[in-house]
Amino acid sequence: MKITILSIAPEQFNDFLKTPLIHRAREKGVLDIEIKDIRDYAPGSFRKVDDSPYGGGPGMLLRVQPIADAIADSKSDDSHVLILAPIGKRFDQKDAHRLAEMKHLILVCGHYEGFDQRVYEFADETLSIGDYILCGGELPAMVISEAVTRLIEGTIKRDSIKEESFEDGLLEYPQYTRPAEYKGMKVPDVLLSGNDAKIKKWRRNKAIELTKERRANLLEDRKD
Amino acid sequence: MKITILSIAPEQFNDFLKTPLIHRAREKGVLDIEIKDIRDYAPGSFRKVDDSPYGGGPGMLLRVQPIADAIADSKSDDSHVLILAPIGKRFDQKDAHRLAEMKHLILVCGHYEGFDQRVYEFADETLSIGDYILCGGELPAMVISEAVTRLIEGTIKRDSIKEESFEDGLLEYPQYTRPAEYKGMKVPDVLLSGNDAKIKKWRRNKAIELTKERRANLLEDRKD
Repeated sequence: MKITILSIAPEQFNDFLKTPLIHRAREKGVLDIEIKDIRDYAPGSFRKVDDSPYGGGPGMLLRVQPIADAIADSKSDDSHVLILAPIGKRFDQKDAHRLAEMKHLILVCGHYEGFDQRVYEFADETLSIGDYILCGGELPAMVISEAVTRLIEGTIKRDSIKEESFEDGLLEYPQYTRPAEYKGMKVPDVLLSGNDAKIKKWRRNKAIELTKERRANLLEDRKD
Repeated sequence: MKITILSIAPEQFNDFLKTPLIHRAREKGVLDIEIKDIRDYAPGSFRKVDDSPYGGGPGMLLRVQPIADAIADSKSDDSHVLILAPIGKRFDQKDAHRLAEMKHLILVCGHYEGFDQRVYEFADETLSIGDYILCGGELPAMVISEAVTRLIEGTIKRDSIKEESFEDGLLEYPQYTRPAEYKGMKVPDVLLSGNDAKIKKWRRNKAIELTKERRANLLEDRKD
């Protein structure tokens, strides 16, 4: 898979490219990731990417032309162009699986007050990582790239993914590791029993209980 | 405000600390942020922070002792301890405002398969940035720190914040900047009219329309 990230702050991705997941995926050849500076598509020596909004209002908007040109320059027949913005559909684990099947993702990061509305005409989809406001699409681009890369064959062990929250529409059951007792808090006996069937049943019940308590909406969405 | 981030991957925060928002907030003295390595609280020369789960299962869990000790070492009477995990309450802009009023946030980042369940006993709250799975709590800690820092007095201009998505329970209205026409796509006439009252009304209607179309649930939650 290839991921192209278009941003006016490409320097914010250095640490991200060095994380074990991304580093390993690139070394194994299962991920090709590039960060492109939108300013390289802005004309003139000032490389101006922003301007004030028509009709007035606070802050600056990203102009359409540099982004449209950056997308055009990055695009092939296999590309899927995603804009990251709070007005988008809320990204979830199902989207991560869907995007992990794509050949080339182009992630467009907003900044400042947002985009000129016409930018959306150049995208296939708009996604949001949650109902909160950040300084730009840089952290969201990392979040989506990490969630998707984890699901590419050859990165994380498959059995790890199957047991995670959201994979079967449930939050994950409680887990414990050594010591068996810490400051008076004990590991539940069943987990020390060695009885695999009982452990499996306990975990499933706990996962359902926790999901019911915290996120009943997930249970409604579930198809058993 | 002070933010303490506890992580087993503190090296992933270097770029984040250099982002304009965080850099400026620290320079102005409105934010004190520190990244602590959980491994510094693990005994022995191996500084082992993880172990396999009781009852079997894939992957490794973060042990309770190093995290409990790291929290204890960071905590004062004013501290609010947050665990970042997919089973938490979904973080939103209201939480960002609530957390921005606190004096000291301690953000605990998970990693691998998650935490020993007993870690939760040492926290005031568990938050999730969305329904997807990442490699750890590092990106979520950056997301929450950025969303909260933006709201601290002295960082972003107040009028910018008021107009953003979610601030009045609506997604943000469409915005445009120069040129007035790009590849045949024109800026709506009303925005060029200079009529402030009409512009305000158009923007409000567009915000309601967009929210209705994309995120009807936000309208239901809204108290007019």
